[in-house]
Amino acid sequence: MAQSFWTARALAVKKRIYLDHAATTPMRPEAIAAVAEGMARWANPSSPHAEGRAARAALENARARIKASLGWTGELIFTSGASEALWIALNRAKVERRIVSAVEHDAVFRAAPGAEILPLLGRDADAAGEPDCDFLADYLAGPGKALVAIQAINSETGTGLIPYGRPPAIDLVRSNGGIFLSDCSQLAGEGTLPNADMIVVSAHKLGGPPGVGALLVRDLAMLEPVGGHEFGYRQGTENLPGILGFAAALEAGSVEDWPTSVEQRVDFKNAIWRAGEIVCPGVQCSHIYAIAMPHLSAAAQLIRFDAMGFAVSAGSACSSGTLKRSRALAAFGVDEDTASRTIRVSFGWNTTPEEIDAFGEAWLEVAHDAAKRA
Amino acid sequence: MAQSFWTARALAVKKRIYLDHAATTPMRPEAIAAVAEGMARWANPSSPHAEGRAARAALENARARIKASLGWTGELIFTSGASEALWIALNRAKVERRIVSAVEHDAVFRAAPGAEILPLLGRDADAAGEPDCDFLADYLAGPGKALVAIQAINSETGTGLIPYGRPPAIDLVRSNGGIFLSDCSQLAGEGTLPNADMIVVSAHKLGGPPGVGALLVRDLAMLEPVGGHEFGYRQGTENLPGILGFAAALEAGSVEDWPTSVEQRVDFKNAIWRAGEIVCPGVQCSHIYAIAMPHLSAAAQLIRFDAMGFAVSAGSACSSGTLKRSRALAAFGVDEDTASRTIRVSFGWNTTPEEIDAFGEAWLEVAHDAAKRA
Repeated sequence: MAQSFWTARALAVKKRIYLDHAATTPMRPEAIAAVAEGMARWANPSSPHAEGRAARAALENARARIKASLGWTGELIFTSGASEALWIALNRAKVERRIVSAVEHDAVFRAAPGAEILPLLGRDADAAGEPDCDFLADYLAGPGKALVAIQAINSETGTGLIPYGRPPAIDLVRSNGGIFLSDCSQLAGEGTLPNADMIVVSAHKLGGPPGVGALLVRDLAMLEPVGGHEFGYRQGTENLPGILGFAAALEAGSVEDWPTSVEQRVDFKNAIWRAGEIVCPGVQCSHIYAIAMPHLSAAAQLIRFDAMGFAVSAGSACSSGTLKRSRALAAFGVDEDTASRTIRVSFGWNTTPEEIDAFGEAWLEVAHDAAKRA
Repeated sequence: MAQSFWTARALAVKKRIYLDHAATTPMRPEAIAAVAEGMARWANPSSPHAEGRAARAALENARARIKASLGWTGELIFTSGASEALWIALNRAKVERRIVSAVEHDAVFRAAPGAEILPLLGRDADAAGEPDCDFLADYLAGPGKALVAIQAINSETGTGLIPYGRPPAIDLVRSNGGIFLSDCSQLAGEGTLPNADMIVVSAHKLGGPPGVGALLVRDLAMLEPVGGHEFGYRQGTENLPGILGFAAALEAGSVEDWPTSVEQRVDFKNAIWRAGEIVCPGVQCSHIYAIAMPHLSAAAQLIRFDAMGFAVSAGSACSSGTLKRSRALAAFGVDEDTASRTIRVSFGWNTTPEEIDAFGEAWLEVAHDAAKRA
């Protein structure tokens, strides 16, 4: 037991294998180069002189490129990241009510502490974990214009909450005069955006730099302006180097260019499935998996995998420091025991098939050891 | 007239001279290198694995270095810039009232639309433009714990509002049980910070990258927590590359290392003074000057200087796009005619004596032309 641990560690320790892309993904070289260029040429895009006008032109060029890469024809407000974009949407949308899914990121609950919470498992729970539209319809029947926030892909389980091509929740909100907001932090750059009214994107989740994100808005009139920059919807001098890195990351390649294929990632899932459990499979994306291992706590798994050279996590990075019970797993109906044994494994633009294989083997080895000890 | 314009342009056009450091200052090479290193090593500082722990260690190291550079012994909350830091201070401080000086940055008025405004020219106006302490005392005599915001150096005029060494306003606020907030965006990195309870700093004003700033807080208990990162006082994954650049910029050198001396910058001011007007001299810093030229509008000056190769501005970059009348100049008591002829010239870490001389000559030439035409 101890031997297999040290053997595996000796094999893996030379090259760390990073499988925590849902927390943040390494920057693409193209994005690093674009930030470097932006730092060298940086001026304030609001300055009227030639340097400022050049910065403004570069900013607007990046805005157009990001919109084109994302296939977005509406407006784009640059922010310092997804959390700020969510805050603006949840606090400045011209609505009387805010309804948010129970599995949204903590940033949503912090930005809208008084929001009504849409349970995922309503009276007619969908096996896929998709929000119950009948239940949502009841919420929307109440008085007052509503903003409804449902993320595209859950960051802890990889569950797709707004499946591509069939967005009944969006249609329902629209037909009730509401505004549909979708946090697409885990989808943007990896799939087609839903046809929402507002969309949140984070650059550092798609190979861009941290400290940059965007709020996509179909119509700026949906938001109360605050003055300042970004058409009057966001304050603070624009982070042009970061924005250039954001654009370059999106253009550097799509999920089709990843070294791993959907089939390889699903094969990994299937291999694990025989000895463990993929939590909340439902409509499941292929780059984020919540995996429950029998007999061993998530905390013990994290320590062991880290020592073996693998960077994986439990829950979101934002809450993993505490390793407290995941709000999202609970909302998905995962029992406390299973949740306590669940880790998150997430793949990205530079994950190789060999890395997935190595982790699959390591996971099976650790699970085998744990079963023997149980 | 036309000839001198084109001659001067031909001399200057080859090398642009950037004298708009108050809008943003070029990044120091050390800061660029630090951001580049941060991008290569980047992981999420909240992740529990080795990569995340290394990022956390780098983040805390940078926090300690920035505090040491600024001579700050209290807490430091990283933000996306000065605007966000001001927002947090003005919206999360545990106070019942907010009193802000009339010359604060627009970000202050947007963050605290209901704030009481402290006129600079009260019943016992100080010739230096310094806030009238008797007047402030009257404000503080009212009921309710107050947050008082007075910037250290005005970004449009270079006026020092909290002179080093004699901060009567701070003592007055403290003795009344209030909290003193100072926006030090134009002071940090260039002078000793005032002994305030909360201080706002912007990295891109001191040779660091845009998209990063800090709120310094003497005691976190002065703020309502919101959850998330930064001890629970700020949301959003930390911008570690930007933070490393912030630290490196501060350490790269102080105002004592600038190629220009205080004497050279004051000589420039005195040379201009003979033909024009330095607006709001009072307690005047030597790196930002508001200069009124007789007979020529600020807009016309900006176009002309820009064509001659000089990047200067009118008002703050944030409002200069519109060239509307400056709120700050009005609050300083500058009449509308003078304000309409006032431009801002600001020096920084890489401004050379030759650049100041070149601009001084150009300014006198343009002023001479304008006088001839008048």
